This record gives sequence, structure tokens and C-alpha cells, in this order.
Amino acid sequence: MKVVHTKKGAREIINGWKSKGQTIGFVPTMGYFHKGHLSLMELAKRKADKVVISIFVNPTQFGPNEDYEKYPRDIERDLELARGIGVDMVFAPKKEEMYPEETKTWVQVEEITENLCGRSRPGHFRGVATVVAKLFNIILPDIAVFGQKDFQQIQVIKQMVKDLDFPVKIVMAPIIREKDGLAMSSRNTYLSNEERKSALCLFKALELSKRLVMEEGISEVATLKERIREFIQGFPYTKIDYIFIGDPENLKERERVELPLLVALAVYVGDTRLIDNMLIEG
Amino acid sequence: MKVVHTKKGAREIINGWKSKGQTIGFVPTMGYFHKGHLSLMELAKRKADKVVISIFVNPTQFGPNEDYEKYPRDIERDLELARGIGVDMVFAPKKEEMYPEETKTWVQVEEITENLCGRSRPGHFRGVATVVAKLFNIILPDIAVFGQKDFQQIQVIKQMVKDLDFPVKIVMAPIIREKDGLAMSSRNTYLSNEERKSALCLFKALELSKRLVMEEGISEVATLKERIREFIQGFPYTKIDYIFIGDPENLKERERVELPLLVALAVYVGDTRLIDNMLIEG
Repeated sequence: MKVVHTKKGAREIINGWKSKGQTIGFVPTMGYFHKGHLSLMELAKRKADKVVISIFVNPTQFGPNEDYEKYPRDIERDLELARGIGVDMVFAPKKEEMYPEETKTWVQVEEITENLCGRSRPGHFRGVATVVAKLFNIILPDIAVFGQKDFQQIQVIKQMVKDLDFPVKIVMAPIIREKDGLAMSSRNTYLSNEERKSALCLFKALELSKRLVMEEGISEVATLKERIREFIQGFPYTKIDYIFIGDPENLKERERVELPLLVALAVYVGDTRLIDNMLIEG
Repeated sequence: MKVVHTKKGAREIINGWKSKGQTIGFVPTMGYFHKGHLSLMELAKRKADKVVISIFVNPTQFGPNEDYEKYPRDIERDLELARGIGVDMVFAPKKEEMYPEETKTWVQVEEITENLCGRSRPGHFRGVATVVAKLFNIILPDIAVFGQKDFQQIQVIKQMVKDLDFPVKIVMAPIIREKDGLAMSSRNTYLSNEERKSALCLFKALELSKRLVMEEGISEVATLKERIREFIQGFPYTKIDYIFIGDPENLKERERVELPLLVALAVYVGDTRLIDNMLIEG
């Protein structure tokens, strides 16, 4: 497994593979790997000749009061895990390599970024789209794999790829969960033991939503939302950031329940903001 | 010479060349060729194995009251001229091919777009950067050639390429002028005979600026600007849009004359908006 820290180094290796006609599968990450990340790498491995991952905690997607500084990092452990999967190259640039000076160019995706995390975290998706555009231009992947847990992120990237004609196929991988159902996240490490118990409210609320739609046949989104709100509020240490119930394609809210339906949640458990989502299909 | 109208068609040809290790030189244009365009193609030919040009009047870079509809077009003549130069591929998409639906993604370059045409034409450079990003992702050029006449445009593209890590080298080609000095432009065709005479005020004002700086040693930008303003106002049918005198790198105005200095002009002659510029160096 090759580990490179510069764009130039990455490009030399990539060009060598491309000149032999080998396809590149790419998984951009912020590191501190859990099984979710590893599942993305495995999927990339099945779909391309070479697997490249990036490890970069991207400052431009964090707000001024967010957890950029304290975001967990453990590059040595990450490299060990990537090696175990059979990753071919890790691109792990420093901040100064990716942003030698303050960027003046932004990739801005409109409409689809208005709700959910786009509303709670202004500038977040501008930072995400911009760094992913940069990474695509450095790695030149044939396919790129993203996890469903960041559902809005993958829709933003798909929109960007379509609108800007990036020659990349975007693949969505399913959410990987702990045994009890908590969606895997590097941020779970912030949780105390008591908070960890409450964190399960997200997954349980999603299961409840599915039951209410599929078994009880609730038809008003407002009613569904109220039931979910009450349910989550029953868990200690929780504070709801948003409950989104709407169209999975354009991420607009709906008034009436129609399938397919996206239920997406962001909940603070203590100081830790967690997200999760479920697609309710036919 | 291959002529293709779809992204898919362009990509097939490009991939064939790339798989043989051939380099691509690219000239994006809006068509209606004059000698300026042809000089860009000739330069691309000297610098790359294959020359690709695009002909596309990009709607997203025109304001609502600008000349998108009446912008001159003559694709048959353009193809003939490109063939004469030895262009290898012309990519001439319809609007619906480039924008199958309204784009939701914009590439926005800040700061450098604040003055000059960025101020007079809000949204113009957002449209330019976005369509050039799309074209780069379709053509995947090794080098791309732009003309100095659109000086701010080339600085915007360079900033975008640097910030978004596009693997493209940007080359600037000199301004090509008519015998009397008028910068070649597809929009010159709008001018009546009387306006054509007045249109020379731009080039003459640039020559005057150079004399004032290099020979008279004017040191205050305000004085220089006033002399240019008076000079241009001496020509009938003219209305000054802007006179910019400042730093050619960051396109910020200066108070005192320092070399290198960019003098850039936009002047309406009748209803036709013309631009021109000169770099005054040591």
C-alpha cells in the first residue's frame, strides 16, 4: 500500500495506473475509521482495479463553533486498517497541501442544500462540494463511494457531478450499524456511557417511523413528525436539531406521506451532534 | 477533423487519444471566429498532440439584458476555418446537451471577480467558471489556451484551476488587433461605420496610458484615469463602462502607478460594449 502526502505524489501513481488502463475506485474520508468506512473501501475494491482512499479532515466544511480541532484522528491505526482491506493508495495531505492559501473558489450546490444539515450547518456543503471537487481533480477516479449515513452529502455530490460533468460514477453504500442499531460514526467516540444509551433514540425513531407509515398507515407528515419528536424527547440528554420527512431526490419536505420517503434526523446527545436516516420504500 | 455534438461522443474520441498517451490542447470559444480565435488554436497546436476546440454560446454567462440571443453565430464558416488550422476535434453542443436541466451547481470565484467586468456584469464570471469547469471535465485537456483580451477571465480561470486542482495548464495568448489597432472581437460586427471609427478610442487610450506612464512619468492613478476618461469622451457615440488601473495579479485598484500595471477598459460604442487592455511592464 502506497501512502502519499502530496498532490504531486498522488498524481504520479495515478497516472501510472491510468496509462495501463486500470480503473480507480475512490473513497474520500476524514479518517478515524470504523466498519462503515471499511465497508466503503471493500465496495470500491469490488468495483475498480485500484482502490484509493483519502484521509483529510477538511477545515472548510466545519463551522466556526464546530469540532474541527477536536475531531478524532489516528492515522497509524487508519493505515493499518486500510492495509488490511487491501487499499492500494492512501492520500493523506496536510492542510497546507490542500489549501496552500485561502481558497477563493467555491463549488456551491443550490436547492438540495437548503434543508437538513444545510440549514443547521451553513457553509458545510459548500466546503464538502469544494473539497470533493479538488479530490476528484487530483485522484481522477472512475467511481467514488460514499455512505448512505450522510444521505444529503451524497445527493449534493451527485448533483455536483451531474451539473459539472465530472466523469465519475457515484456509488452509495448502506449504513453500517452497531449491534444495537446505532449508526457507526467517528463522532460516537465523544459519547459518555449514559449518552451512548440515549444515542439509540435516532435508530429507534427511524424504526418507529417505518412502523407508523407501513403498519399504522399515518398519512400526514405533521402527525408523523410530532410522534417522532415526542419519542426522541423521551430520551435524556437529547436535543433535536431537525426531523426531516420528505422527498429523497430533491430533499424537499412533503405534507403527505408518499413512498419513497426519506426520514432524516439530527439530534444532539449531550454536546455531540448525531445524524441518521432511513429510506422507506414500497 | 471530427465534429461532435454530444458529451458522450467527445469523451469517446478523447479517451481514444488519451489511451495512446496523446496530449490534448483545448480552446473553448463562443464561435464566430476571427484571427484572435485562430491564433489560440495555432498556439494549442504547437503545445499539444491533439487540438480540441469547443463552440458554445454559453447562456449562463449572459445577463438578462445582454446579447445572448443576438450574439453572432456561423457554425459552417467556423468549421471551415478550424479545418484550415488543422484542429482535430470540434465539440459543438446544443444548449440542451450542456444544460439538460437548469444547473444547481455553480463555481464561484471570489475577490478577483469584484472589479472590472465582474462589477458591470453580475453573474458573468460565475457562468464562465461553471461552463469552463464543465468543459474541462468533458475534454480533460492537458493545456487550455485563452486570449489576453479577456484578461480578467483568464485570471478567474487560473484562480479556479489552482483552487480546485484541475490538472490543466492555462496558457495566455496575446491580443490580436486589426491593422489600426482595434482588438479583434466577435462583437465588432455590431458596429456601424461611424461607430467603428470611434471604437478605436480603446486602443488609443491604452497607448496614451503607456506614454503617460513611461514617458511623462505620471505617478497618481487618479490623474492617469482622468486623462484617459477625457480622451475617450472626445470620441462620439462612446460611454465609459469602466477604466481599471491596478494590479494585474489580484485585479485590485492602485492609488499610485507601479509596474507591472494593468490598464483595462470597457466602453460602450453605440449599444456595443467593447473591452481592451494593456499590461504596462518594466
